[in-house]
Amino acid sequence: MHSASIVAVGTELLFGQIVNTNAAYISERLQLLGVSVLYHFTVGDNPGRLKKTLERAAEESEIVITTGGLGPTQDDLTKELIAELAGRQLIRDEEAFRRLDEIMRSFGHRNYTENNVKQAFLPEGAVVFYNEAGTAPGFAIETGRNTFIALPGPPREMKDMMQRSVIPYLAKKSDAVIFSKVLRFYGIGESALETALLPIIDGQTDPTVAPYAKEGECAIRISSMRRTEDEAKAAVESACEKARELAGEFLYNDEDKDYPQVIVELLKERGLTLAAAESCTGGLFSGAITSVPGSSEVFDRAFIVYSNKAKVDSLGVSCETLDAFGAVSDPCVREMALGALGRSNADIAVAVTGIAGPGGETEDKPVGTVHFAIAGRGRECVSHEKFFRDRGRRVNRHVCVLEMCSMIRKFLNSR
Amino acid sequence: MHSASIVAVGTELLFGQIVNTNAAYISERLQLLGVSVLYHFTVGDNPGRLKKTLERAAEESEIVITTGGLGPTQDDLTKELIAELAGRQLIRDEEAFRRLDEIMRSFGHRNYTENNVKQAFLPEGAVVFYNEAGTAPGFAIETGRNTFIALPGPPREMKDMMQRSVIPYLAKKSDAVIFSKVLRFYGIGESALETALLPIIDGQTDPTVAPYAKEGECAIRISSMRRTEDEAKAAVESACEKARELAGEFLYNDEDKDYPQVIVELLKERGLTLAAAESCTGGLFSGAITSVPGSSEVFDRAFIVYSNKAKVDSLGVSCETLDAFGAVSDPCVREMALGALGRSNADIAVAVTGIAGPGGETEDKPVGTVHFAIAGRGRECVSHEKFFRDRGRRVNRHVCVLEMCSMIRKFLNSR
Repeated sequence: MHSASIVAVGTELLFGQIVNTNAAYISERLQLLGVSVLYHFTVGDNPGRLKKTLERAAEESEIVITTGGLGPTQDDLTKELIAELAGRQLIRDEEAFRRLDEIMRSFGHRNYTENNVKQAFLPEGAVVFYNEAGTAPGFAIETGRNTFIALPGPPREMKDMMQRSVIPYLAKKSDAVIFSKVLRFYGIGESALETALLPIIDGQTDPTVAPYAKEGECAIRISSMRRTEDEAKAAVESACEKARELAGEFLYNDEDKDYPQVIVELLKERGLTLAAAESCTGGLFSGAITSVPGSSEVFDRAFIVYSNKAKVDSLGVSCETLDAFGAVSDPCVREMALGALGRSNADIAVAVTGIAGPGGETEDKPVGTVHFAIAGRGRECVSHEKFFRDRGRRVNRHVCVLEMCSMIRKFLNSR
Repeated sequence: MHSASIVAVGTELLFGQIVNTNAAYISERLQLLGVSVLYHFTVGDNPGRLKKTLERAAEESEIVITTGGLGPTQDDLTKELIAELAGRQLIRDEEAFRRLDEIMRSFGHRNYTENNVKQAFLPEGAVVFYNEAGTAPGFAIETGRNTFIALPGPPREMKDMMQRSVIPYLAKKSDAVIFSKVLRFYGIGESALETALLPIIDGQTDPTVAPYAKEGECAIRISSMRRTEDEAKAAVESACEKARELAGEFLYNDEDKDYPQVIVELLKERGLTLAAAESCTGGLFSGAITSVPGSSEVFDRAFIVYSNKAKVDSLGVSCETLDAFGAVSDPCVREMALGALGRSNADIAVAVTGIAGPGGETEDKPVGTVHFAIAGRGRECVSHEKFFRDRGRRVNRHVCVLEMCSMIRKFLNSR
């Protein structure tokens, strides 16, 4: 197994102005490639300390991946120091220069500075990773003992380069192909999911099953590294099948899509449109659904009825219901769903009313008490109550959105 | 100036399952204390590599702060290795034991294991930081050369301990008091703000002015470290005053509150209620406003009118307007605002309609074209158009929410 260290370069990281998300991203990718990550280092734009860190990283591990310090300014020293450690000259890479020139001209910089041209100089003999999402190219150099890989610091550029160039480069080195899938579950806790999936987690080395913590839901990544893509895919698919057998009732997607996106796609498939009536979520559900590009095809409208008066005026909830049962009640949520259906052009209407906290609690209705309803043309209105463990207003409301998605999916699948 | 290194301990960090947000948080806090952070290290639960890393961190810097590895399991070795490096025995801390015992009993564990008791053993002579947000206590040890500070890994526990114990501990060491304020700006870009604030940024050592990148807005933290709190406060307030003179028109808050919270508080102050009519933001604005606890006092309702039909039915936008100008137009957004005002009990109604992308673009209406309007009882309806640079659907919609907040604030302040 290859070993690696990741070195993040940039004083802004040491000031705490930026969180180093690159290290986690690269580590996860490397793990899938069967590379064992031993250390993360972060160091500022200080030549002495950066050099020392690169030397240590190279001593401790075979592969050294750096992020940052490839830019045009005097501070940017990563490339120079790697070239020095590897005993290479920096020479102008003609393709890198051509790309840089093109970008500079497109920005209207005719007389760009020597600093900018610096980005086109790369260590002799390096494998160059051209930057499709920014200007500074990355590269790999093999010395007898180490592989140095230098990547740009901005996460968008780094991720693009990892995906496009570095993963294939490393996979080729290890003569293997990786395939992975992310499965998403709702309605089951993380430890219950792990217990359910034990037969495919325990003692498995390939495919690997790695759980992810997500807010209000669970996800697992199933990965396989094999000699061919077909083999890797087949191994992952077979583990997916087993996961489906073991916890299929909670699985809502196997392509790492989030629940609102799954709902928008499901509605599109069925040619149905949706309306919503939201009280405690206050627009969060509609905001999540409309965050999906193209959701306008399936989302008709929503009634955000925060006050009781709004529930009465906008949805026709009866004053008697509010007086007798309160706004957080089954009769109220059903009237909300039916009101939204009647007052829209949608085929389906969902409604939610509950206590998101921190205020609003009563003796018999603690924070986390939420009522849900769904109504469809020509179908009975379905409703239920949930008591969510209070995890603070933000999470409480997020969980309501997931529950609404889950309710829609069940409703569509039960007809 | 003191120097520090931060060592994060935990194999899950090297797997990329968790992003190390602790290092950035601690770094930022240390910077405010005038401590210069030289390195971040991340290492797994491996005794050899952890020991080597602690030794290196102690060589390179005066203060070594660790996060993680203080728990009850065999893997958790940070405390043992720090004690070894500092030449101290681990002895049972009676207060730590009492607290642990209390927690275990409250969970109904009468016969807890030796592993659990392990958490109450701390290096002899350590200053103990009791954990008010979890079980594992942290601590500090002074050797002749170094200060070792061990903190728990979960960010909530670490932050609580930093705030409650570590910052006062370090401030006392440096015989200084820190005071800081975060100012938030909207409507000005980061580099324009830095230019405007140059007189208080350039060449200043105390108070320091540190800019923060935030999505669609800007923030700065002004901090001062002085011998007394009064002195630090006075220095920060005076820099705040200058920031207000230099860029006051863009400053919307000086207590690090986000814009929706500022709007909710402003409405409460004025005793006014709000309604919203959202097209492109699809509920995001209402979701943001209602994310503020207590917003039910000021938020009446919203009309999420995604389809043209919904705009007509729910808000009374005229078909003629839609035909002649389209849904993304000034006449439409004004009718939306007036419709929301007329159909609600609110004192003020805001409306938004625009093209969030990636689809929906037309020749004369590129992605990022957005119309805004605001109407109030007994006041003229005010509207404007914005062309936001397209930064992807998510950011485009977020910026619309900020613009709506800004519009409400101006409207309330202009009467």
